Amino acid sequence: MNKKGLALFMRARMRPRDSSKISLSPLAETLNRVAPDNQANQSGGRGMEPASEEGNEQTHFSCRNERPFELVKESMHSAISMNKTEVLDAVLNDFTEGYFSLSGESRKALLLSLAKEYDLNRAQVRELIKQYLGLELPKADAADEGNVGEESSLSAFYRLERNLRHALKPMYEVLFERLNTHPGGLKFLSILRADILSILAEENILSLRALDSYLKEKLGTWLSPAALELHQITWNDPASLLEKIVAYEAVHPISNLLDLKRRLGIGRRCFGYLHPAIPGEPLIFIEVALLKNVAQTIQEVLWDDPPILEHEATCALFYSISSTQPGLTGINLGKFLIKRVITLVKKDMPQISIFATLSPIPGYMQWLLSKLASQLKLAETDDATRASDQSGSSFWENILEPEEERALLNLSEECKAMKNGMEVMFNLLTTNSYTWTNSPEMLSVLKPLLMRLCARYLLQEKKRGKALDSVANFHLQNGAMVERINWMADRSEKGLRQSGGIMVNYVYRLENIEEYAQSYFSTGQIHSSDDILYYGVEA
Amino acid sequence: MNKKGLALFMRARMRPRDSSKISLSPLAETLNRVAPDNQANQSGGRGMEPASEEGNEQTHFSCRNERPFELVKESMHSAISMNKTEVLDAVLNDFTEGYFSLSGESRKALLLSLAKEYDLNRAQVRELIKQYLGLELPKADAADEGNVGEESSLSAFYRLERNLRHALKPMYEVLFERLNTHPGGLKFLSILRADILSILAEENILSLRALDSYLKEKLGTWLSPAALELHQITWNDPASLLEKIVAYEAVHPISNLLDLKRRLGIGRRCFGYLHPAIPGEPLIFIEVALLKNVAQTIQEVLWDDPPILEHEATCALFYSISSTQPGLTGINLGKFLIKRVITLVKKDMPQISIFATLSPIPGYMQWLLSKLASQLKLAETDDATRASDQSGSSFWENILEPEEERALLNLSEECKAMKNGMEVMFNLLTTNSYTWTNSPEMLSVLKPLLMRLCARYLLQEKKRGKALDSVANFHLQNGAMVERINWMADRSEKGLRQSGGIMVNYVYRLENIEEYAQSYFSTGQIHSSDDILYYGVEA
Repeated sequence: MNKKGLALFMRARMRPRDSSKISLSPLAETLNRVAPDNQANQSGGRGMEPASEEGNEQTHFSCRNERPFELVKESMHSAISMNKTEVLDAVLNDFTEGYFSLSGESRKALLLSLAKEYDLNRAQVRELIKQYLGLELPKADAADEGNVGEESSLSAFYRLERNLRHALKPMYEVLFERLNTHPGGLKFLSILRADILSILAEENILSLRALDSYLKEKLGTWLSPAALELHQITWNDPASLLEKIVAYEAVHPISNLLDLKRRLGIGRRCFGYLHPAIPGEPLIFIEVALLKNVAQTIQEVLWDDPPILEHEATCALFYSISSTQPGLTGINLGKFLIKRVITLVKKDMPQISIFATLSPIPGYMQWLLSKLASQLKLAETDDATRASDQSGSSFWENILEPEEERALLNLSEECKAMKNGMEVMFNLLTTNSYTWTNSPEMLSVLKPLLMRLCARYLLQEKKRGKALDSVANFHLQNGAMVERINWMADRSEKGLRQSGGIMVNYVYRLENIEEYAQSYFSTGQIHSSDDILYYGVEA
Repeated sequence: MNKKGLALFMRARMRPRDSSKISLSPLAETLNRVAPDNQANQSGGRGMEPASEEGNEQTHFSCRNERPFELVKESMHSAISMNKTEVLDAVLNDFTEGYFSLSGESRKALLLSLAKEYDLNRAQVRELIKQYLGLELPKADAADEGNVGEESSLSAFYRLERNLRHALKPMYEVLFERLNTHPGGLKFLSILRADILSILAEENILSLRALDSYLKEKLGTWLSPAALELHQITWNDPASLLEKIVAYEAVHPISNLLDLKRRLGIGRRCFGYLHPAIPGEPLIFIEVALLKNVAQTIQEVLWDDPPILEHEATCALFYSISSTQPGLTGINLGKFLIKRVITLVKKDMPQISIFATLSPIPGYMQWLLSKLASQLKLAETDDATRASDQSGSSFWENILEPEEERALLNLSEECKAMKNGMEVMFNLLTTNSYTWTNSPEMLSVLKPLLMRLCARYLLQEKKRGKALDSVANFHLQNGAMVERINWMADRSEKGLRQSGGIMVNYVYRLENIEEYAQSYFSTGQIHSSDDILYYGVEA
């Protein structure tokens, strides 16, 4: 290939980007993201098939022909009920292959049968429980003496508690345990759980939810962070691994090979957590830019070309963290990642003194629009029932300051005709194609307003004492602080839709990481810079 | 260093071998084996300290000064009761360091306090159990219909069963879980369990036994074979890893560097299973010799110098398997090891067609001597009570054939004076320094006898349907067959003491591995060659 041909090749778009497919549900999003693999497999499933498994010599997934449901169910039964022998490997392979061959509907039927027919033996539990109630509790105050009498009176407790623990394990636990110790089995379980989550997202089936919560707990104990290997991903890595980075990059999609190469090249770093049981596929990865200052927009990070010399960098900016396994949702794999990456970067480049992120605010617009919508609804109801005393309802809250209200209503004649500033705002923000971003007048009114409310959203909006925004919660529990919010930092369609284009810098101060994590955990306290407090909100 | 100096260095004995320290208990043996490390640490403990942890940057074990017991107990309490934050790492490090600083007695006191004071909350269990008994069991025949009524009637069951499962977890589980996800924590847990086992070997403390069985189950699920990496250990590996091989080789001790280098050199292979959470230290390793024929004595394997050219080899002989973690006793790590090693060797050297072992028979002499002793005791009692009709007792069994009996009594005048052949045999075998091995007359009588009884021991002596001999059981459950027993195959002190110098070849026939493993598992059937049947015993 000549130079020009190579340049074209490197710039060729890697995946068709179809904005209509982008969804707010992270699950649906990740399922869409693996779709190219499925199409390559020509399967007719519902986006549940695994990525192709070239890297795994011991597991062969075939999606060509659907096997008869009853046959797959039988292999599942063998996998659960068979004696623990070497032959089990063949049975487990047979079951996993059979499962992959099934359509979405058949998979659902199989999973329901697993959840219901392989549940626990309630008659046995009841029997043990009755025996347990017959035991006499030893005196608590004798516990410290450790005398022989007390020891032996406890022996019946130890025995029954042990039996009870085992009886309370559903029969399907055997299948999970066996798959976990089977080559390729952990990856299979992660796919199985992704299927379960996508079924539960459509329909709340209690037995399946109980199975899911059981499986999630198991996966959590098997995926110990201590067993995860931190690997620096470079252009020298196998294409099969780099392909996964392209497929799973969830924050800022990688458009072509040139883009990918830049993210792995000079002035950039990419680190991934690999688990030995899922080889050649990072479970989570983080992208880092080495910069002179904390970047304010994602454009300068993605298109900083040529990048600055590495020895001039003083800031390591984490600009993207993606997890690759929808089936591991809810299992915190990132916990040690940031801390370990900081340690590694600091060791390599001691001149780096600032560790910051440039992060999306995925829940901001959703929160703001639903807030506006509910207030408008309240206002309507109030209008109908008792005049227009808007402060009458205790749920009523004008989230606008008086001058903001005025400015919004004064934007145009059309705006003046509306009921209040919030209606104007709602209409502006929900018009298609984001016309407000192209009007200097609208921007001058909306910018201070959206920035102020964004600061409020990040610092004050909580759910069970924790930040409502999922990305904020992730960094705060890792010990970061909220440093700065940046206007028009992500002008992509996704950026505008999620957060009106605003992005946020979280900063990790090495000397405060543990203290901040601790205080966030125990009291929900969010540390923030003076810059943020300028917006008149306090955490 | 000149050539001569290097030669001396390579031949220098690596560990003082003190035969008086060798014990029949595998636990005591392994604890003795880690002793050199402890001595280096100058600690005054009872052989419980860990090997030095150079390879693990995040865990610093200090054994210099014993910390006050109450302080360590307090850090244990914090490690269990603290909120889940980043600060936990510091607390866990503090606890593990404190634990290592304690004397054996203080460790025991701490473990007992953990077992008793951090047990489960029995009042809470009782409360949940009462609620559970109040629930009405749904009809089993409705299970298939999946109707909404049945689903919702089960919801209370799912909830209570989940709560009950959690309530049945002892409080110390939190400590185990946290250590498992903590860098260096899995290794710490393995050392903790080694301590527990050594305490239980001396004294049966029920609460500690309950804790041990809980910890063992946890360790079993965390150490998935799928997460173990098969690594070929060579002379190019770090000295810190090779040191572990020397320290833990349990079957045929490595005498000097030359011996170690030979075991990793031409015509030899060494493979180890490494777990990512315990870096630089194989959990189990296997040594392989590439030979023309299945070796009959260990001497020819250990001293085959120079070895044959590798391309002339047709047999891969497994001559040593050692596990390195006494704290992982009872957890089957070797399950997939042999199968994976066979696959690897076969891929590298397709000309190898025979996969066999040359294995010790660690329980043979112990079984034989206790059999003889009990028969002699029975004979005495019978003598005293009712004349000399030895067949009168139903426990009486003359394990000797008439011609063997005669030959034994005819060995000398002294022998003739004894009661029967079994007494002669018992006395011959229990004289110190194994004089019988130097007498041609005694050998000619004892050889056929010991070989026949050894075949019987291997093929017929069972415990719960499985081979009594632990090494036999290991290979049989992996799918091997008993091929041949070899006279005077291991003339070392240990070999003579364990099995009268006899060793056994197990053979793995690729085409039969799964079938043999299956039939051994389900019916206890032991496959054997015609050679063995020559001794007149059948499996």
